[in-house]
Amino acid sequence: MTNPPRGGPVEPEPPLTSPSLDPVDWDAYRVEAHRLLDAVLDEIRDVAAGPAWRPLPDDIKAGFAAPLPQDGEPIAAVWAQCRDTVMPYGVGNRHPRFLGWVHGAGTVGGMLGELAAAGLNANLGGRDHAPVYLERQVVAWFRDLFGFPETAAGLLVTGTSTANLIGVTVARTAAAGPRVRQHGVAGLRLVGYASDQVHGCVAKAFDITGLGRDALRLIPTDRNFRIEIPALQAAIAADRRAGFQPFLVVGCAGTVNTGAIDPLPQLADLAAAEGLWFHVDGAFGGLVRLAPALAPLVAGIERADSLAFDFHKWLHVPYDAGGILVRDGALQVATFGGRAPYLAGADGGTAGGEPWFCDLGIDLSRGFRALKVWFTLKEHGARRLGAKIADNCRLAAYLAARVIAAPDLELAAPVPLNIVCLRYVAPDDARDGDALNAAIVVELQRRGLAVPSTTVLERRLAIRVNITNHRTQAADLDLLVRAIQAIGRELTGRAEGAPIGE
Amino acid sequence: MTNPPRGGPVEPEPPLTSPSLDPVDWDAYRVEAHRLLDAVLDEIRDVAAGPAWRPLPDDIKAGFAAPLPQDGEPIAAVWAQCRDTVMPYGVGNRHPRFLGWVHGAGTVGGMLGELAAAGLNANLGGRDHAPVYLERQVVAWFRDLFGFPETAAGLLVTGTSTANLIGVTVARTAAAGPRVRQHGVAGLRLVGYASDQVHGCVAKAFDITGLGRDALRLIPTDRNFRIEIPALQAAIAADRRAGFQPFLVVGCAGTVNTGAIDPLPQLADLAAAEGLWFHVDGAFGGLVRLAPALAPLVAGIERADSLAFDFHKWLHVPYDAGGILVRDGALQVATFGGRAPYLAGADGGTAGGEPWFCDLGIDLSRGFRALKVWFTLKEHGARRLGAKIADNCRLAAYLAARVIAAPDLELAAPVPLNIVCLRYVAPDDARDGDALNAAIVVELQRRGLAVPSTTVLERRLAIRVNITNHRTQAADLDLLVRAIQAIGRELTGRAEGAPIGE
Repeated sequence: MTNPPRGGPVEPEPPLTSPSLDPVDWDAYRVEAHRLLDAVLDEIRDVAAGPAWRPLPDDIKAGFAAPLPQDGEPIAAVWAQCRDTVMPYGVGNRHPRFLGWVHGAGTVGGMLGELAAAGLNANLGGRDHAPVYLERQVVAWFRDLFGFPETAAGLLVTGTSTANLIGVTVARTAAAGPRVRQHGVAGLRLVGYASDQVHGCVAKAFDITGLGRDALRLIPTDRNFRIEIPALQAAIAADRRAGFQPFLVVGCAGTVNTGAIDPLPQLADLAAAEGLWFHVDGAFGGLVRLAPALAPLVAGIERADSLAFDFHKWLHVPYDAGGILVRDGALQVATFGGRAPYLAGADGGTAGGEPWFCDLGIDLSRGFRALKVWFTLKEHGARRLGAKIADNCRLAAYLAARVIAAPDLELAAPVPLNIVCLRYVAPDDARDGDALNAAIVVELQRRGLAVPSTTVLERRLAIRVNITNHRTQAADLDLLVRAIQAIGRELTGRAEGAPIGE
Repeated sequence: MTNPPRGGPVEPEPPLTSPSLDPVDWDAYRVEAHRLLDAVLDEIRDVAAGPAWRPLPDDIKAGFAAPLPQDGEPIAAVWAQCRDTVMPYGVGNRHPRFLGWVHGAGTVGGMLGELAAAGLNANLGGRDHAPVYLERQVVAWFRDLFGFPETAAGLLVTGTSTANLIGVTVARTAAAGPRVRQHGVAGLRLVGYASDQVHGCVAKAFDITGLGRDALRLIPTDRNFRIEIPALQAAIAADRRAGFQPFLVVGCAGTVNTGAIDPLPQLADLAAAEGLWFHVDGAFGGLVRLAPALAPLVAGIERADSLAFDFHKWLHVPYDAGGILVRDGALQVATFGGRAPYLAGADGGTAGGEPWFCDLGIDLSRGFRALKVWFTLKEHGARRLGAKIADNCRLAAYLAARVIAAPDLELAAPVPLNIVCLRYVAPDDARDGDALNAAIVVELQRRGLAVPSTTVLERRLAIRVNITNHRTQAADLDLLVRAIQAIGRELTGRAEGAPIGE
């Protein structure tokens, strides 16, 4: 042992590293983890007994202003805070009477898939590991479901917003060649087409890709909210005469407003004749391919050049999970491929596994969202998932029939799929019907009875009931109808507020 | 009771809906869920005892070719297949000797946060619910950490690829005005700047946004791989003379190759003087703000107009989770905002909660990735997470010292942060050093000893050791050095293959 230098004792050298972030006491930690799991399971099991939505109290809102924690807390304390301030105040989409926007309801098995994925913590950007093969399997399942050829490529993404962005970007490459990646779109006059019912994220994709929203021509729709083919043809011809380069037509397989499905075979024919890329936004509607009786509604989807769809909507995979398929897989790689030296592949070892998913889309780091999709498909099977989709459409028809039969309700649009747009009408009331219907929706939500949303159809506000919910039963819709009527009477001063029971 | 019509008994009417996808037997299902959780916990606890990576056997690969399941299986069978064919064959980034690319190692608490999020199944696109407030809290934490003002906005995204894309898109709006959304970029001559070490996803962002990769000027770097300010100034001046419109400079806070940090204060000064948007890619390096001794390395980051960074790298949040901050929050909304009638907000009820996150980025449907981030920060606290970052940098310096001291190893680049690029050198060997070093890496991986990656620096291949791993200890790097040397001797025929123990 050497002597300490003069002047005092040596400071002990600090250890090179502190302990890992793993639990110090695994057994104690495990107990807490199981408690958390039990609480989450209880909550899902009992969800229907609670309100469809509850407002977040102001004191809880204020609690979210706390600054970045400098010191840690035991996991039990972290979970307790989450349990008390977050879990009871979700948006409500697990509830059988959550009928707003287009939300999936989640499943326990999907949650377990996500748990396993988070434990494995894989990065699906590329490299050679089982998660990559599993994601390829999921892509192949949906490639086959949608009738795409084996030369198609695809990958999982956050959702259809990103999937549509990828579709538009590949279409841009198809029209302008891969040199568009180097040179940009300056000097090009690309224009695309979709119905005036197309989801807003398609215009956003035109915006982000530098083509500009004006380059997406919105074509009028018929009384069933489907694109008018003659109007589309006229728009293409006019653009060609004006020196634009038509390059893309987007078909809607289930519009967000009413569930309308564009005439996909005619769009496919037209795209072929005009030399346009045919992209389909099948966010939720495309999945009716799983229900044999409904699949003919989206005939022609198998002719798309690219297809965007979601797993977190009508397949109830926990958020977020969408998919993109591209018929010509090589073109997808030509659009997004190319890696720097620090991402070089190798013939063996961890850096194998070509092709890497980062060459097929925007993200290099990618979570293992394929696993929760795989769990969902394996646990329930295509038939049952398809049956639940058919259930939802049958429920929509049931609700539409109830609306038609009710003197104080009216349908605001045809019901081709799973969406019912309706209005409460008070014939002897001079007040603004839009404001009244909007107020009814807010009251339904505030009281936790049900969560429909609203939309605007032909310049009038409608109550929009969207059924992408495996827990919804006919009795839930009976309650919804009674509640709309009772709140409508109440708001128009024709009845006292009264409890609306099941 | 009415009589059946003539001709036979009535078919009973099918029920309107089948049962939900919830477990039929909750108790039995719960047992399986707990088994799954235990197995995942065991695996994380014991990860260091296994190999850093193991190749996926061919028979398991072949199993992933099974078609879309038509019928479901019990959750226990689904999990058993995942446990046997997926979980042992991850990319390896939980292992203490996973030192490749830039992967986080994950934490148990982050996994539990993801479990709770998947159970709640929230969609964070917008609306009024606790998850939205929690994500805002996480954004505020990092806004404060990085010294951004309260007027800043931001949101969580999949990772820095998407965060950089958002940053470039907002910068485009700043330069061209919000009309660029309608008109596109045709007619604009925007050009941006970054060092030749910038991550490939920045060029990809230029590509996707229609500006083109050529519009990103790659500026030479100094011997420490930092951008050369005089060369940058010259490039800007040349572009202005040629009629281009310089609009953006990207600073690297930790390059992927070597961890180099650009001179951020000088870049901020230059951006201010030239009227450019100053975006910082701080994917992992930005997080040294959490380690007081290292924070000065990224001084100037608080002057960025936008900042991209990841939670799934140096904060070990399970994949995927990144973030974007924009100093002028209103400009972020001006770039991505605007919603269709079916997404209208409301003064009360579920459709409240403005501003909606979908107005700040690409995605409308968004998972609750904020919760796993929140769990991680709450459980460990900023101090400890910062200490682990400092640990990793100390380990990198330790490894660099060992490399310098070894006659058969050489450093390929300075080590400013957590990345060590090195080469095995066999002075008396005429073989190609690049091929030899690549082969050493593959062998290290194949044998499960360690997983470094490779890169190319000054046209020579280097073994790249990246330490963003809370489990790595000095002994792991000792083993790595011994293994590189032993495999190097073996591959150059100077020694037999011998076991390399810990």
